[in-house]
Amino acid sequence: MIRYDVGQGEFKDWVVAESGFSPNQLRKFEAVMALGNGYMGLRSAMEESYFGEKRNLFVNGTFNQADPTEVTELPNLADVTQIDFYIDGERFHLEIGETDEYVRKLNLKTAELTRSFKWTSPKGKTFQFHCRRFVSLAERHLIGMKVEVEALNESASVQLVSAINGQTTNTGAQHFLNGVPRIYGDDLLEYVQTTRQSNVDIALVSQHRLSKEATVDKLMDRRKVGVGYQFNLVPGEKVTLEKFTTVYTSRDREFLPNGADQETVKQQAHDTLEKVTQKSYDELRDEHRQAWFDQIWNRYNIEIDSQDNFDQLAVRFSIYHMTIMTPDHDSRMGIGAKGLSGEGYKGHSFWDTEIFVLPFFTYSNPEVARSLLTYRYYGLESARAKAEENGYEGAMYPWEMAFPDDGEVTPLYGDIDIVTGERSKIWTGLIEQHITADIAFAVNQYYNVTNDEAFLNDYGYEMVFDSANFWASRYEWNEAEARYEIHNVIGPDEYKEHVNNNAYTNYMSYFNLKLAIKYYEFLSAQNENVFATLNEKLDLQQNYENWKEKAEKVFLPAPREEDQVIPQDDTYLSLPEIDLDKYKKQEQPRTIYKDYNQPQINGLQVTKQADVLVLLYLLEQTFLKDEVEFDAALKRANFDYYEPRTLHDSSLSLSTHAIVASDFEKMDMAYRMFRRAAEIDLGQNMKSSQEGIHAASIAGIWSISVFGFAGVRLTPDGLSVNPTLPNEWNSITFNVDWRGEQLRFEITREQCTISKDSQTELPIVIQNEVRKLKDTLTVPLALQYN
Amino acid sequence: MIRYDVGQGEFKDWVVAESGFSPNQLRKFEAVMALGNGYMGLRSAMEESYFGEKRNLFVNGTFNQADPTEVTELPNLADVTQIDFYIDGERFHLEIGETDEYVRKLNLKTAELTRSFKWTSPKGKTFQFHCRRFVSLAERHLIGMKVEVEALNESASVQLVSAINGQTTNTGAQHFLNGVPRIYGDDLLEYVQTTRQSNVDIALVSQHRLSKEATVDKLMDRRKVGVGYQFNLVPGEKVTLEKFTTVYTSRDREFLPNGADQETVKQQAHDTLEKVTQKSYDELRDEHRQAWFDQIWNRYNIEIDSQDNFDQLAVRFSIYHMTIMTPDHDSRMGIGAKGLSGEGYKGHSFWDTEIFVLPFFTYSNPEVARSLLTYRYYGLESARAKAEENGYEGAMYPWEMAFPDDGEVTPLYGDIDIVTGERSKIWTGLIEQHITADIAFAVNQYYNVTNDEAFLNDYGYEMVFDSANFWASRYEWNEAEARYEIHNVIGPDEYKEHVNNNAYTNYMSYFNLKLAIKYYEFLSAQNENVFATLNEKLDLQQNYENWKEKAEKVFLPAPREEDQVIPQDDTYLSLPEIDLDKYKKQEQPRTIYKDYNQPQINGLQVTKQADVLVLLYLLEQTFLKDEVEFDAALKRANFDYYEPRTLHDSSLSLSTHAIVASDFEKMDMAYRMFRRAAEIDLGQNMKSSQEGIHAASIAGIWSISVFGFAGVRLTPDGLSVNPTLPNEWNSITFNVDWRGEQLRFEITREQCTISKDSQTELPIVIQNEVRKLKDTLTVPLALQYN
Repeated sequence: MIRYDVGQGEFKDWVVAESGFSPNQLRKFEAVMALGNGYMGLRSAMEESYFGEKRNLFVNGTFNQADPTEVTELPNLADVTQIDFYIDGERFHLEIGETDEYVRKLNLKTAELTRSFKWTSPKGKTFQFHCRRFVSLAERHLIGMKVEVEALNESASVQLVSAINGQTTNTGAQHFLNGVPRIYGDDLLEYVQTTRQSNVDIALVSQHRLSKEATVDKLMDRRKVGVGYQFNLVPGEKVTLEKFTTVYTSRDREFLPNGADQETVKQQAHDTLEKVTQKSYDELRDEHRQAWFDQIWNRYNIEIDSQDNFDQLAVRFSIYHMTIMTPDHDSRMGIGAKGLSGEGYKGHSFWDTEIFVLPFFTYSNPEVARSLLTYRYYGLESARAKAEENGYEGAMYPWEMAFPDDGEVTPLYGDIDIVTGERSKIWTGLIEQHITADIAFAVNQYYNVTNDEAFLNDYGYEMVFDSANFWASRYEWNEAEARYEIHNVIGPDEYKEHVNNNAYTNYMSYFNLKLAIKYYEFLSAQNENVFATLNEKLDLQQNYENWKEKAEKVFLPAPREEDQVIPQDDTYLSLPEIDLDKYKKQEQPRTIYKDYNQPQINGLQVTKQADVLVLLYLLEQTFLKDEVEFDAALKRANFDYYEPRTLHDSSLSLSTHAIVASDFEKMDMAYRMFRRAAEIDLGQNMKSSQEGIHAASIAGIWSISVFGFAGVRLTPDGLSVNPTLPNEWNSITFNVDWRGEQLRFEITREQCTISKDSQTELPIVIQNEVRKLKDTLTVPLALQYN
Repeated sequence: MIRYDVGQGEFKDWVVAESGFSPNQLRKFEAVMALGNGYMGLRSAMEESYFGEKRNLFVNGTFNQADPTEVTELPNLADVTQIDFYIDGERFHLEIGETDEYVRKLNLKTAELTRSFKWTSPKGKTFQFHCRRFVSLAERHLIGMKVEVEALNESASVQLVSAINGQTTNTGAQHFLNGVPRIYGDDLLEYVQTTRQSNVDIALVSQHRLSKEATVDKLMDRRKVGVGYQFNLVPGEKVTLEKFTTVYTSRDREFLPNGADQETVKQQAHDTLEKVTQKSYDELRDEHRQAWFDQIWNRYNIEIDSQDNFDQLAVRFSIYHMTIMTPDHDSRMGIGAKGLSGEGYKGHSFWDTEIFVLPFFTYSNPEVARSLLTYRYYGLESARAKAEENGYEGAMYPWEMAFPDDGEVTPLYGDIDIVTGERSKIWTGLIEQHITADIAFAVNQYYNVTNDEAFLNDYGYEMVFDSANFWASRYEWNEAEARYEIHNVIGPDEYKEHVNNNAYTNYMSYFNLKLAIKYYEFLSAQNENVFATLNEKLDLQQNYENWKEKAEKVFLPAPREEDQVIPQDDTYLSLPEIDLDKYKKQEQPRTIYKDYNQPQINGLQVTKQADVLVLLYLLEQTFLKDEVEFDAALKRANFDYYEPRTLHDSSLSLSTHAIVASDFEKMDMAYRMFRRAAEIDLGQNMKSSQEGIHAASIAGIWSISVFGFAGVRLTPDGLSVNPTLPNEWNSITFNVDWRGEQLRFEITREQCTISKDSQTELPIVIQNEVRKLKDTLTVPLALQYN
């Protein structure tokens, strides 16, 4: 069972805990309690092994194609965490004997995982175990572990067997050539492995430090190297094993620009290991903890006073996971849909990054946001290639992206089609195209929040212009209606394949065109050099005319007069409806794919996730706000229509719904959705996170808090704040980076206080009225609602 | 714990049993209780899964190279045996709850594996389980399974989840491209997989038959397809699930000569499945059982009356495993050193086949022996290529052989070198060369026992001539001694690498030359056509002179005058000795490699396994018997010298020692070694067979009985019998195929009776005196020992 109330004192509302060992929840906790530092991610499998566990260690950016019939993915490195304990020759694990006082804790503040329990063997010998580990933020290549075993009542012969195990696969797919194991002396293990196709060398080196003399057994197996320490424990005696592992790959930033050969990678792993092992586990952990304080908690400091402490914990959980999943160190890498916490979605980046995760960084750590957008810039060439392959112009971003050069990496087949019994064909890589506009949207949002013109000059303009070129080439002319349409796409609602004029796609493509036009006009007037360079590269002047011509005639599905509902696509509103109760109920909803296959669902008025609603939420943050005239009533009308038809069968759905619900003060529903979004990973459902946490819904916890409840929003005029705290909340305090300044928001039920350190004046919009923010601005909340 | 006394009535001394579930012995029992039919081998992992299990399904001959850095091996196919039981949502397994009346039985007579037990869940619900399975000998492509669950005290919600799981690897090496899963209806699973390098298509199709209505869940995962059946059980209610799987590969004999495309392979799997599933599990099992009776037990019928019933069981165990490991259906395939019962030795064939396993077939089923030798004939081209690569002439057989064309497939690296911490280099593939002579020896033995001249004409002559050519080119001239020597080899004692003039190798190469000379003279006189063909191909006349020239001057290390000890190689007898007690003790002997690395062991007077002794045992069966003048006293002297220096650190060692010890009536020792040889796989040591049973020592159980205790032996004059039963034995009865006749030997402590059906006279030697055997010859044993 997962518990939220275990943290005490300094760590109150900082600890996610498992209060008893549960073999059914191994995978869930491996993901939810995953460790990482953006460079690498480590699932929290136990030291001792269990059937059904999934040991994963990923290093960001090391993509490899296991097989010509599969797409590239993040390979699961050799496991370094397995330490098996043999007590009098019998392997210790928690499914046998008696376990007491079991608690496993992920301390979000220190980013350390600990586990302690008493265990009595089937023969009646009792031991106290303490296990600790961290993936260092101070030294990104370091994994530290410490295990302690104490004999409480009887003497025992104990053997600790610790390994680097390269027998791991990605659910059966082996990404690595047979590696080379080696042992140095009695305590130092080395395993070097190379990916089959992408030729990335990986060196893992583990140093051991045992507190006691022991008989040493050196172990070598295929793809595996290990060491066994055998000793006797007498009652009251405690033994400690520290294990430090360094991980380097030939793709590491350290080795840019030319990469490194295997020998260099290995040597670097040894050098760093030798350096860090001058210190103890506790010292290294303290350095790691300090890094978390300095870089993370001190910066993102968000506090929530809620009737339920869960909410504070959930927001910290959100920031914790966004930190460990994000490769802030290397702009050649993106964020996976499951972060680095599982094999799900293969480490690929989706629109989840730009629309759901990126805003956290844009508003609180713009340098990281810049790096993530630069990753998309590096993908521009392969986006152009994809456009060309598909008969279009400009840059058509891949629906799923891995290493920038890899291009489109969406798999071709998915889960079972229950009608045919075959794997279902995945169409998203071919026809879910809105991601190109989503990236342009994110560039603009980043620019508006940061004023980072250098980014636009270096990367952003080119991305926006060439994505506009894609859309301009993508439209189909409807002669009868005399308008440009977009046929045969998938919108955010992936239940609907091959639809025409998905509202989200059409509007966002229009936004992309208009943004290009705006940028063109701005750039041509403001920056001759950059304009000249890009003009030469992209023939801007001619494209500009094309954008304007196309933009004027894009079909933008209008709200129906009778009820203000925007048609999700050409046919949605006329499809038959079915009773969705069993799929929508909160306790164990049934997956609709168990009853219908994709072609059948395509014909029903049922939506997977926010579609029209995301559009409404995004567009009002742009210069199109006034042009398209989406008002609060329209938002509410569409919410009321679509939400009952939406199964929230994607982790991207609830946060948008909660934010939109906040906008029209449907706070009970908004809060319930906040909780549900948080509970996708942090709840009691034991299966939901097995393949990895849900990056988008985890970001959503923060987004609902700041954009929804605190009501912070970008407007064409500047930053707006319009808080509507749920009844359960008394206050929220957080930071926002706004154009180079860190603003501190303190919002209570009575007032909103905005403070900053510097003397600069900043425009901030309260209630649509622009004010100049200097030092501290305190606004009684009553003012907000007239 | 393994038990031998569980079989009752008809099955007395036919049942190998496990009397309690032991998680430490999963792998041992998987191998020891493995099922198979020569076409395929299936390790006996439980239906429900456990950590540490090794599920293996191999189809003979489907070799694939997983990786350019590794050698080809038998790939582990998708698992079809996993059936997980969920009771009220919790996964059933035997490490939780209470288990009573547990017994798992491998019935050697019926070749069926059964398991039954009562299990009480942690919540107190009790169930009776019965699981059965077989790998059919009547339909070689069929695996049949049946599981029954009965609720004994409370109602429960039960789910059975059955899969074809292609996530399996060979200890981390993935041989297959991502496969294609499919479900037909509610009960039929299909998985098609293709090896990465050798391009073998494999189709597995599983049909299910449940005795009760159930809710069906169709499951698909990466490389996996499954079906879940959910239902309620009330107390006293029993549900039965039958699962039938057919397995076909594009390399199957059925598809010769051109192989088959994937569609054809798949269709054949479906067709056979559809045919067999007209019948019930029990009917199909009965057909399988009848095949075992007709083809195996009726033919090989061997009976032992011993004070310990274990001995009878052990010999049946030997025949059982020799049957399931041997591809009697296809002469393109050999016998792996672990049969098909594990990943050890990668399914490769060693000299183990010719010297240790083949005699069983030569003497009791010559057609199978012929097929196994034909496999070596098919390997002749790659043996020639190996000779050429190494700068020699003729045919140099690979130390390890896979599919005939694969050539030398010995891995380059082995287990840890405890001094350097690196993998140790494996030299056998380069310099363990005696196998070429061993194969020639086996050809001659086969011919002498069977008189199968057609085999010699078609295959045997060419093999013997071209292996002689290899030796003739292999010798090094020692000018000082004026003799041919063989430097830098490994003999049977693999502790000694890079030795000169290993006695076994030198003598056997000499035998090979002399055999070629003899065959040449015979053939040139007897069969003009064959001679002409081979002469054209191999330039026999010139080679013949060469053989004679070389044979005259081969250095054959002579026994030392003082003690009759034949030097194992040039330096062995002068090496320092160490105390070998801890490595030789029978209970948990320590592996010497834990203390010394290969170069160190190379410098010590310690032997891994029978070396000079095998030579003595083999040569006396040949026409060299008189020439080399090895007598009983010499045999004994060498036994007494080498045995104390031999660690029997190979499963090939004990059987030779036991046979030789029988020859000079050291019966206590011989019987002890018989038991130890049998206990390598059938004993209580829980780790010894984890990677698979030991084909050579399993064959040794039969060989010690027939060649050792019963004293049946080939002599230059014919078949000799000279029984010396151990004190524990009262009698042994068995069949021998001798030149087309089946002889029945009945040996008691008093007499030896040899009977046969036909009227033909056969020469048989009793006490080195040739008698004519007609009908029945009864020889009072007293005559044997004067």
